[in-house]
Amino acid sequence: MKTLDWNQLNGQARADALRRPALENSGREAQVADIIARVRGGGDATLLELTRAFDKAERSSLQLTEAEIKAAGQRVDQELKDAIELAIDNISAFHSAQLPAPISLDTRPGVRCELRYQAIEKVGLYVPGGSAPLVSTVMMLAIPARLAGCERVVLCSPPPINDAIIYTAHRCGVDAIYTLGGAQAVAAMAYGSETVTKVDKIFGPGNTWVTEAKRQVAADVDGAAIDMPAGPSEVLVIADGTADADFIAADLLSQAEHGPDSQVILVTPSRPLAERVEQALARQLAQLSRKDIATQALAESVTFICDDLAQAAAISNAYAPEHLIVQTAEPRLLLPSLRNAGSIFLGAWTPESVGDYASGTNHTLPTYGYARTYSSLGLADYQRRFTVQELSPEGLLAIGPAVELLAATETLDAHKNAVSLRLAKLEKQQ
Amino acid sequence: MKTLDWNQLNGQARADALRRPALENSGREAQVADIIARVRGGGDATLLELTRAFDKAERSSLQLTEAEIKAAGQRVDQELKDAIELAIDNISAFHSAQLPAPISLDTRPGVRCELRYQAIEKVGLYVPGGSAPLVSTVMMLAIPARLAGCERVVLCSPPPINDAIIYTAHRCGVDAIYTLGGAQAVAAMAYGSETVTKVDKIFGPGNTWVTEAKRQVAADVDGAAIDMPAGPSEVLVIADGTADADFIAADLLSQAEHGPDSQVILVTPSRPLAERVEQALARQLAQLSRKDIATQALAESVTFICDDLAQAAAISNAYAPEHLIVQTAEPRLLLPSLRNAGSIFLGAWTPESVGDYASGTNHTLPTYGYARTYSSLGLADYQRRFTVQELSPEGLLAIGPAVELLAATETLDAHKNAVSLRLAKLEKQQ
Repeated sequence: MKTLDWNQLNGQARADALRRPALENSGREAQVADIIARVRGGGDATLLELTRAFDKAERSSLQLTEAEIKAAGQRVDQELKDAIELAIDNISAFHSAQLPAPISLDTRPGVRCELRYQAIEKVGLYVPGGSAPLVSTVMMLAIPARLAGCERVVLCSPPPINDAIIYTAHRCGVDAIYTLGGAQAVAAMAYGSETVTKVDKIFGPGNTWVTEAKRQVAADVDGAAIDMPAGPSEVLVIADGTADADFIAADLLSQAEHGPDSQVILVTPSRPLAERVEQALARQLAQLSRKDIATQALAESVTFICDDLAQAAAISNAYAPEHLIVQTAEPRLLLPSLRNAGSIFLGAWTPESVGDYASGTNHTLPTYGYARTYSSLGLADYQRRFTVQELSPEGLLAIGPAVELLAATETLDAHKNAVSLRLAKLEKQQ
Repeated sequence: MKTLDWNQLNGQARADALRRPALENSGREAQVADIIARVRGGGDATLLELTRAFDKAERSSLQLTEAEIKAAGQRVDQELKDAIELAIDNISAFHSAQLPAPISLDTRPGVRCELRYQAIEKVGLYVPGGSAPLVSTVMMLAIPARLAGCERVVLCSPPPINDAIIYTAHRCGVDAIYTLGGAQAVAAMAYGSETVTKVDKIFGPGNTWVTEAKRQVAADVDGAAIDMPAGPSEVLVIADGTADADFIAADLLSQAEHGPDSQVILVTPSRPLAERVEQALARQLAQLSRKDIATQALAESVTFICDDLAQAAAISNAYAPEHLIVQTAEPRLLLPSLRNAGSIFLGAWTPESVGDYASGTNHTLPTYGYARTYSSLGLADYQRRFTVQELSPEGLLAIGPAVELLAATETLDAHKNAVSLRLAKLEKQQ
């Protein structure tokens, strides 16, 4: 990790030091558009063909059968099932607590205004493939969908789908599992096929193909909404001299191992701590299976030496990290001054990985500075809010004249007339 | 209005009848990109130059002075001020009720999970110009911003800005008013200039220039987030034979007068009612100042004759209207079967215009079918949710082993190690 002294940087140098690297555009726009067009035109046959070409998988159907799901479940170790169960319990408890209460309020006598919630009807979840089965992704996406009350929850993952993913999806109440990956999976869920349900909103991480396909279907009103913009994973650690350097190094590495483009930042007023962390990193790095990936990520990472914890908070707020770890003597004291983070981890006994898997919070978080405006994924993302109003004659008499005047001011005669007609009728009735 | 018998349409014909016309792309992408680039490069000088060119307005500064704001307020009639005050009261009451309570929950003993809220720091509001001063737009955008706790709220509107807009903006607590319109206003708020505050999120309606500029800045991570996708305004009325045809005609016209592309739909099981509405439309239309606009919109509008109210609800759910008016003998009975609407207006005494101005609900609503996944604008759009977690040693001992196993399953060694190190330390301490 580079070490920079925050107070020796000028404004531009500070901005540059906090700037994330440009997202690779990868020139996939045209290729992805082509895949989407082919899927829309060709349905299941095209999806099977693309799966053969891209995933080298020969399947005669896109959806896992009940027998396949059952068999996969039987092959998963009981110990792993127990761990999944613990995580499901905690994630369910925290997300259940997010169920909103409708609001009903009379702003005036006879003017009833309500805020109500409904689940988004059909949602699609994407779980990347690869050598490691991302069971946590399944839980984080599927549990809130079911708790929110979505009527249909489907999941795509590229073949061969790992048994643990199939088991977890089934356990979390996913209605259908499709052996589909990449842009074709996103296209299938956005537009539907003979087998695949057309969904209203698509959730989940993915590679550049998936990300670009999500972007394209979200820009099309006939496509599907998406959860949030994507970017590489990142962590910022605020620590003081009391922090355990081994813990911090482990937390930094658990971010760095995600990929060579992972962002890792340490902010501390303690230069000795920064040095101890550097040594601990070297020790721990040597033993990691993903040592090469983590080494690449660390090469781009930085430690900022700052004046005090207030300045550390300001640096974090300016960066807006996905994950923010606070390892200080009194981490909760710093909380009121922290903003623009996806999820905050307080204290020595709260490594980021507990939130990734099992504390109960969602691990789907805004990256790349989007934490300034986007939220961490929650039940709200699977629901929508709408308003209802109902006026009695008394209510209309109370606010009608103001509405007439405001409508007239905006030169919207018909808006005014819709009130005037009714007020005239009420007058006649009296 | 065309009249179609829903039950005589096949699936394709039904889909076609409910399809909105394609949004005009207008080929403005390159022009808008050019304006944005010029604003980013040229700051205030370019903004003044563009304002001179597009708005034919000579100004030496972009921000209204306190003296200008005060003078504008003095020129607004007291009667209008009173109407604005009534609307502000109701809108404030309904939006205050939306302030969320943070959640704090121990998913296990020693595993504290929290959901917290923070206001988006800086927001920009856009209020279109034109002959009619859209004071309601100012209230609907600015009141929730202030209630949510946004630290800075700025507003752009093209010059000359009407006194009533200036007065309302000031009354609603807007911090700065800029005489800027079109794509240059959006660019200025997204990227900032010497005078204009760079904001995190931009709210408000606009013409195709504004809409395209919002789309472009939202796609750029260095730009700004936006409220929701834009589309023409629309209403769907569900009515039975008991409804007042004059009221319905007035409500349909108050949508039709918005613009020639406004969408107006009546769904009723009563053919006689449909005929009475047609006659009432002809009578009322003749007296409207915006007769030509409304006539064009009505030419594209449709009445669906259906079997019963259950089918009417299904048609509405498939269309997903921005505004949904229910004028039936017992409108509240239908509410549980209604979904995918931006805002619902129940009963004879609840014209859409009360929600547009003063009932208390927000008139900024998802159009163009986006009501399937997007919400009506509310306090939540000016805030973001984030999570906090804090584990005690006891908490980590309880869930740590499950996290280790799940991380190992996903082959993320460093994630596992961040827990293992801590568990080892706890063991030593015991």
